[in-house]
Amino acid sequence: MTDHSDSQSGTTRRDVLRASMMAGAAASLWPASMALATSPHHDAIRAAALANREADIARIQDWIRLPSIAAENLNMPDGAEYMAEMIREVGFTDVEIVATDGHPGVFGLMDNGAERTLGIYFMYDVKQFDPSEWRSHPIEAHIVEVDGFGRAIMGRGAVNQKGPEATFLAALRAMRDAGVAPPVNLVFVAEGEEEIASPNFHQILARPHIRDAFARAEGVFMPSASQGANGEVTVNLGAKGAVELEIVSSGESWGRGPTHDIHSSLNPIVDSPAWRLVNALNTLTTDMGNRPAVDGWYENVRALTDRERALAVGWARRADETALMSALGVSHWVDDMDFEDAIVRLAQEPSINIQGLVGGYTGPGGKTILPHRAVAKIDLRLVPNQTREEAERKLRAHLDAAGYPDIEVNVSGGYGPTETAEDSRLIQSQLAAYSALGVETAINPRVAGSWPGVTFTAPPLSKPAGHFGMGYGTGAHAPNEYFVIEPTREGIAGITDATMSYVEMLYQLASAA
Amino acid sequence: MTDHSDSQSGTTRRDVLRASMMAGAAASLWPASMALATSPHHDAIRAAALANREADIARIQDWIRLPSIAAENLNMPDGAEYMAEMIREVGFTDVEIVATDGHPGVFGLMDNGAERTLGIYFMYDVKQFDPSEWRSHPIEAHIVEVDGFGRAIMGRGAVNQKGPEATFLAALRAMRDAGVAPPVNLVFVAEGEEEIASPNFHQILARPHIRDAFARAEGVFMPSASQGANGEVTVNLGAKGAVELEIVSSGESWGRGPTHDIHSSLNPIVDSPAWRLVNALNTLTTDMGNRPAVDGWYENVRALTDRERALAVGWARRADETALMSALGVSHWVDDMDFEDAIVRLAQEPSINIQGLVGGYTGPGGKTILPHRAVAKIDLRLVPNQTREEAERKLRAHLDAAGYPDIEVNVSGGYGPTETAEDSRLIQSQLAAYSALGVETAINPRVAGSWPGVTFTAPPLSKPAGHFGMGYGTGAHAPNEYFVIEPTREGIAGITDATMSYVEMLYQLASAA
Repeated sequence: MTDHSDSQSGTTRRDVLRASMMAGAAASLWPASMALATSPHHDAIRAAALANREADIARIQDWIRLPSIAAENLNMPDGAEYMAEMIREVGFTDVEIVATDGHPGVFGLMDNGAERTLGIYFMYDVKQFDPSEWRSHPIEAHIVEVDGFGRAIMGRGAVNQKGPEATFLAALRAMRDAGVAPPVNLVFVAEGEEEIASPNFHQILARPHIRDAFARAEGVFMPSASQGANGEVTVNLGAKGAVELEIVSSGESWGRGPTHDIHSSLNPIVDSPAWRLVNALNTLTTDMGNRPAVDGWYENVRALTDRERALAVGWARRADETALMSALGVSHWVDDMDFEDAIVRLAQEPSINIQGLVGGYTGPGGKTILPHRAVAKIDLRLVPNQTREEAERKLRAHLDAAGYPDIEVNVSGGYGPTETAEDSRLIQSQLAAYSALGVETAINPRVAGSWPGVTFTAPPLSKPAGHFGMGYGTGAHAPNEYFVIEPTREGIAGITDATMSYVEMLYQLASAA
Repeated sequence: MTDHSDSQSGTTRRDVLRASMMAGAAASLWPASMALATSPHHDAIRAAALANREADIARIQDWIRLPSIAAENLNMPDGAEYMAEMIREVGFTDVEIVATDGHPGVFGLMDNGAERTLGIYFMYDVKQFDPSEWRSHPIEAHIVEVDGFGRAIMGRGAVNQKGPEATFLAALRAMRDAGVAPPVNLVFVAEGEEEIASPNFHQILARPHIRDAFARAEGVFMPSASQGANGEVTVNLGAKGAVELEIVSSGESWGRGPTHDIHSSLNPIVDSPAWRLVNALNTLTTDMGNRPAVDGWYENVRALTDRERALAVGWARRADETALMSALGVSHWVDDMDFEDAIVRLAQEPSINIQGLVGGYTGPGGKTILPHRAVAKIDLRLVPNQTREEAERKLRAHLDAAGYPDIEVNVSGGYGPTETAEDSRLIQSQLAAYSALGVETAINPRVAGSWPGVTFTAPPLSKPAGHFGMGYGTGAHAPNEYFVIEPTREGIAGITDATMSYVEMLYQLASAA
């Protein structure tokens, strides 16, 4: 996932962050009848999964050893080929590498003669890494012991997203080896640019034969190790959209400031692009950055429904506010609001965040320059019914109207918000699967983080979309990323139980009302 | 000098920058009688200087090979020892290493039985360097050929300030070898922290015996290769003060933002120190950064005198505005003012400059974090009668009153403005020396750049202070710094002529009315 996860390492913080992004209710709110579902052929498939266990683990390790990093143009064609071969091996047909203006995607079909079809979304790329920060080399994918959790594969992509994805493929392999056809047809798509905000993913889905294949699906999911440290899983009904961009003030564009760094003593007679950036940024938000002030930003923002608000409040009431504050290192929510209001606000509000400021001299001490260029790295978080196009257009118009037509807005990637109906067959069968597996479940009306689910949920496809899967891991985007394969902690699924969770989900979807 | 010079390399830009910092009038405005002065013993001293020439050059090279860099704590005690030995060698007595809370200075006396005493200020430290950016290794101090200028010593400190300083010592050596006592007594002080804004230099001058020694001086100068590419020199009547500081917004100090970087999606519920920095900075200036808006900032700012204004206008009328704009890469002065007004404004106005912005993620692309800390690197330029203490106090009070008591102001160094009377014996003898040497001279009422002359010009010493010296070089604070020793360009002094300019200056001071 792009950024559901913390950029810092540490189990506790990721767990709390996960919690901070959801606002849900216990699975026990859901029909008890669903909790009784069991998948056919369970014992045979499980036996096959157990027989495949070592090979399945080795496959995850092998995949990690081929890191594809779009930002560094590392192993991209090889990564796509590897992805294609992985799905061929478990029975997908019509597998193709799909070119884009950026790095290629992968498409495939599996017609199981079933009534219903499920869409599957993978990423084959991983986040950058610095081996010096890791206790175990990030692409050697060693099996390590993680205190309190058990044996895990440690490496870049272990949990984000190769481990869970390969575990889903292990489920298909187990069914094949058990002689059981999956109960739904599958359509598969993978991209290699998820970690750079999926700038070209829409091009893959725009291919008519791919779009038509997904149009037949009940919904789409991405495999995910969705369990928290306490074993609870979250089912998300949506996610905010995210747009990553740089706001750039430069003498070159402005025509007033210098075109190169000059001596700082000239500030009285040469206009400063750095000051201009500060002035322009200052118009973008109010309330100390907590509320977007871009003209028309809230025009299409819809308020949370009563149900969504209730889910958020329900989650807040069950959560440990003190632990969350401690993990984040904060002592007040914005405006000193109480926790329930904060969790509702987290789901409700769009935001304009400063990720970074960089301009002029950034080293130790000072340097007497007047910089010709300064940049703010920004991410916009969008809520329904905002769109990426709207956000970019309004930001540009706001800067123009505020007198900053020269200030550049360089968007590197992004997408609008994802929304999926709670009563959709995809969500109901996910809840039913977790219930059948005896897993505590919370429903999150809207993740504050983002993934490109909108590519499926927006027209023309307009499909339900989300994540699914048991298992546990942490360290996405951080050092020491791992995916637990043999847990010692109660309630956490190991690789075989996680494999079986996908089997369960396929059967639930096949049989859902 | 701390920052008279451009941080970029290139002869043209430095020349133009030098021009941009001065506003003066031709020497021909000054009494013609002075232009007839000649120094006694000229031929004998010049013969000695010529005899010493190769050794003098070798001494500059040798000194460059011992770079003392305060910011890196590199060779500081060794640099002070070397400095002390250099002045002992030319006849200073009572030489001592003077401890400070930072790096040591050096003090020495030369009693020549003369009526008048001159103070000399040296720096023995140099700016940082990156050898990979240089065409000739910065501490190997090779002799190189510079197109259009001739043979030069290239190395860190060549012109800023070891070359000119060693050339002044060469003048004393030549007099000694010619058997001529210098016509004035000398008191000497050097510091090793000039390049970090002289944070402890005042401690050296606060020593009673050092203060008393300087109290006997007519004035103080720092040797300088003051010629521009056209041979003209500038005599400065003052310089702005400079204070370097960082303005820091952090969750730790604020108590509201996070104490570490957290996931950017939390922006709706966690306060952002980066936004807070932007908001706070925005209160510090108006007019797109061109006018300080700190409460009371102008309280003690005195307007330029009519004479100072006339000098500035006079300089502007002689200068090439188009070339200056081109070198700076600007097409408009602030407020679209005309060039004369801009040059007056440069001398008149204090400024609050953003040197750099650095916070959160500063690498390529984006990273979805909400940073816990963001910093603006700032330099304040102060004009008479502002003081450093006043500026720090008012900046703090302004932030407090504006609601930012948690935002830190971390001052790394600085000093108030320098002012020296045009009719002082120091300035008049400098003008007379240049005139005697047939050098075109401009008077600059106030350098927009800064040096710690205020340590001498403010009470309790209240002495005239400035720079003096012929010769040419460029690249201070930049790669490929050099000091011309054997010029091919008409009007530029080589090492012997530069040496003799110091001799001339000493005699002019001794005989000035």
